[in-house]
Amino acid sequence: MDIITEVRALCESAKAASRSIALASEEKKNALLAKIAEKLIENETTIIEANDVDLAAAEENGVAKAMLDRLMINSDRIKGIADSLYNVISLEDPIGKGEEWSRPSGITLRRIRVPLGVVGIIYEARPNVTVDSAALCLKTGNAVVLRGGKEAINTNKEFVRVIKSALEECGFERGAVELITSTSRESANALMSMRGLVDVLIPRGGKGLIRACVENSKVPVIETGAGNCHLYVDRAADMTKAINIAVNAKCSRPSVCNAIETLLVHTDVAAEFLPMLQVALAPYKVDLRGCERSRAIIGGISAATDEDYATEYDDYILALKVVDTLDEAIEHINKYSTGHSEAIVTEDKEAADRFQREIDSVALYVNASTRFTDGGEFGFGAEIGISTQKLHVRGPMGLFALTTEKYLISGSGEKGTVRG
Amino acid sequence: MDIITEVRALCESAKAASRSIALASEEKKNALLAKIAEKLIENETTIIEANDVDLAAAEENGVAKAMLDRLMINSDRIKGIADSLYNVISLEDPIGKGEEWSRPSGITLRRIRVPLGVVGIIYEARPNVTVDSAALCLKTGNAVVLRGGKEAINTNKEFVRVIKSALEECGFERGAVELITSTSRESANALMSMRGLVDVLIPRGGKGLIRACVENSKVPVIETGAGNCHLYVDRAADMTKAINIAVNAKCSRPSVCNAIETLLVHTDVAAEFLPMLQVALAPYKVDLRGCERSRAIIGGISAATDEDYATEYDDYILALKVVDTLDEAIEHINKYSTGHSEAIVTEDKEAADRFQREIDSVALYVNASTRFTDGGEFGFGAEIGISTQKLHVRGPMGLFALTTEKYLISGSGEKGTVRG
Repeated sequence: MDIITEVRALCESAKAASRSIALASEEKKNALLAKIAEKLIENETTIIEANDVDLAAAEENGVAKAMLDRLMINSDRIKGIADSLYNVISLEDPIGKGEEWSRPSGITLRRIRVPLGVVGIIYEARPNVTVDSAALCLKTGNAVVLRGGKEAINTNKEFVRVIKSALEECGFERGAVELITSTSRESANALMSMRGLVDVLIPRGGKGLIRACVENSKVPVIETGAGNCHLYVDRAADMTKAINIAVNAKCSRPSVCNAIETLLVHTDVAAEFLPMLQVALAPYKVDLRGCERSRAIIGGISAATDEDYATEYDDYILALKVVDTLDEAIEHINKYSTGHSEAIVTEDKEAADRFQREIDSVALYVNASTRFTDGGEFGFGAEIGISTQKLHVRGPMGLFALTTEKYLISGSGEKGTVRG
Repeated sequence: MDIITEVRALCESAKAASRSIALASEEKKNALLAKIAEKLIENETTIIEANDVDLAAAEENGVAKAMLDRLMINSDRIKGIADSLYNVISLEDPIGKGEEWSRPSGITLRRIRVPLGVVGIIYEARPNVTVDSAALCLKTGNAVVLRGGKEAINTNKEFVRVIKSALEECGFERGAVELITSTSRESANALMSMRGLVDVLIPRGGKGLIRACVENSKVPVIETGAGNCHLYVDRAADMTKAINIAVNAKCSRPSVCNAIETLLVHTDVAAEFLPMLQVALAPYKVDLRGCERSRAIIGGISAATDEDYATEYDDYILALKVVDTLDEAIEHINKYSTGHSEAIVTEDKEAADRFQREIDSVALYVNASTRFTDGGEFGFGAEIGISTQKLHVRGPMGLFALTTEKYLISGSGEKGTVRG
């Protein structure tokens, strides 16, 4: 069987199963999630055995240590995954919620949230994404077709075997969660071509993966994750807040999308702020790269190029730039940002307002760290990614993002009197 | 200048101008729309002259009469366009509206509606779309790049000249509305490639145009319009309602997307209903095409093939099918529908509920005509198209559909304490 045929068969299976999950009550969907949690604990041994096979293969292939850690599943991590299932159970199901109104023509309309249908997820090494994604999709009444990375293939197969047995025991069709077991580029491309069977594709992973989906997919894609984020220290900044936020936004986890990559500072406070910053970042060995004016203030740092300002380092590297005005800061950010998260530190309300109004990014912070851009921190209870596109939803995507809408209209024989 | 360079320059101009329109107050945007209305009336003569050039060329090219009528602009139609501008002025501006909440971490979040940025519209012959689209985009703070059809090019140029002069007089940048004057396929493809400059592309027109955008565009597309709509006459239908709705849904305007293409009827009432239907449709000379069982009830009609059931005729043609159960009707619709609008005629509440729940279409009607699927009829005041996709918005797209969201977060120096 060629790969397109194989992927299409899985998508058709998911589509066929999507109706039963779409129509299930919240109670029944929650019972399913609880059953999955229970079975994960029960099947701990076989899951860890499968994971051992993946880990051994990864080690043999010389995979980096940080990656091995992401790949690893142990008893504690399985408990953590089960806990996250109970968390999803506790979240309110958006399906069926909506509003109602009437029109002079005599019709009554109800607009309600409904599942998207079949969601495709393409992701990389972390096997917990398998269960997390399936749980969020099932809770919102969606079937899901998963295409994980080759490093975790045995673990993923085992997770999906467990999920399918829970689906069956709870009276759902097993096809509601499908795993594409081929991890070739062709299998990802095949999934991207399944317009009509797959309603939405969500890539969860690195820049290369996301770009490939955005550029090649015939299925509508929700673009996630790219984060070239900025911190601007205004002339009216509180220096203590500025330092705390800078250290947190750069160093608490540099590899994630909501960490900052460039720090802009107003010329009036640059001479005071930059030396303090250099000291505060020293313990983290942050590689600072500055414009000419910042290099004149703090010595021993390399020069920042335009390419630096355009780069999402995802590492202990920070580009610096001294600006003369708030306008210059806003302009720099609108030029280089990927539209994810930006923060200003200022006690000047007008400057804060302008920063929030005039920058075209998902999340604009005043006196808080960009690291807050997260479904949990925003109060959504969970997230399946952070959308950096403008269609559908923007920012952290919780359950709502996995739904669409539908109009239910009733009349009593009214004709349509529409002009055209 | 090659076409890509030309289109890119226009998109860059729109992007540069988008900030000033995005930040404008509702009052200032309404003043602009009123100024455009005023100037359209003032410039009636030059607009009609330009339109005469288009009409003469179209006649010379042997364009069909119905098409000539769509293309034609006269004094009354200019007044109609001006009226529609005043209607847009009267609609509530969604920009800046939203909700606010706080989190235990100490941050306060505000989620507000903001403009999409730059909207691309690709459309065909009707020149009024130029002004309508520009008005809806400007009201929601968006810049717009228009690419109309070659038949209306002179009229469109004149409309855009008038709009630009209004933009200038009201203190906006002229680039907020740009027209691509090349009407080649290459110019449309160039617009589809402007990811990063154009935020969303909305095709308004026939199936070929929409398919081309969906398949080729690198810019996110809102798919609109394809409508293979169904009417199902249930065993518990009121026959008078059924006839009225069938005639309205098929004959009031067969060329539009919310007209029905197939009528399904329950076997228990088929012998009573189909002869009545044939009589009722006779004055409209509707070409009926039936399944074997319907042809056994009403004579002299041709056979419906699978292809018929899959076709959006947009004409005085109606496919018929007798079904044994509600399930069979639902299955047929989920198989052949484009997910636009479907109606059931029934006095059985349970059948109505199942029809609305189990069919995966935008709008599900009980005892009302599918022709109601329209922004005006739904109470949105205006529409820029009817979305048949699941991302962003579904159904008639009013002002809300031309906006996205943004999070404004404030703290007092809180760090992000995000796990990752």
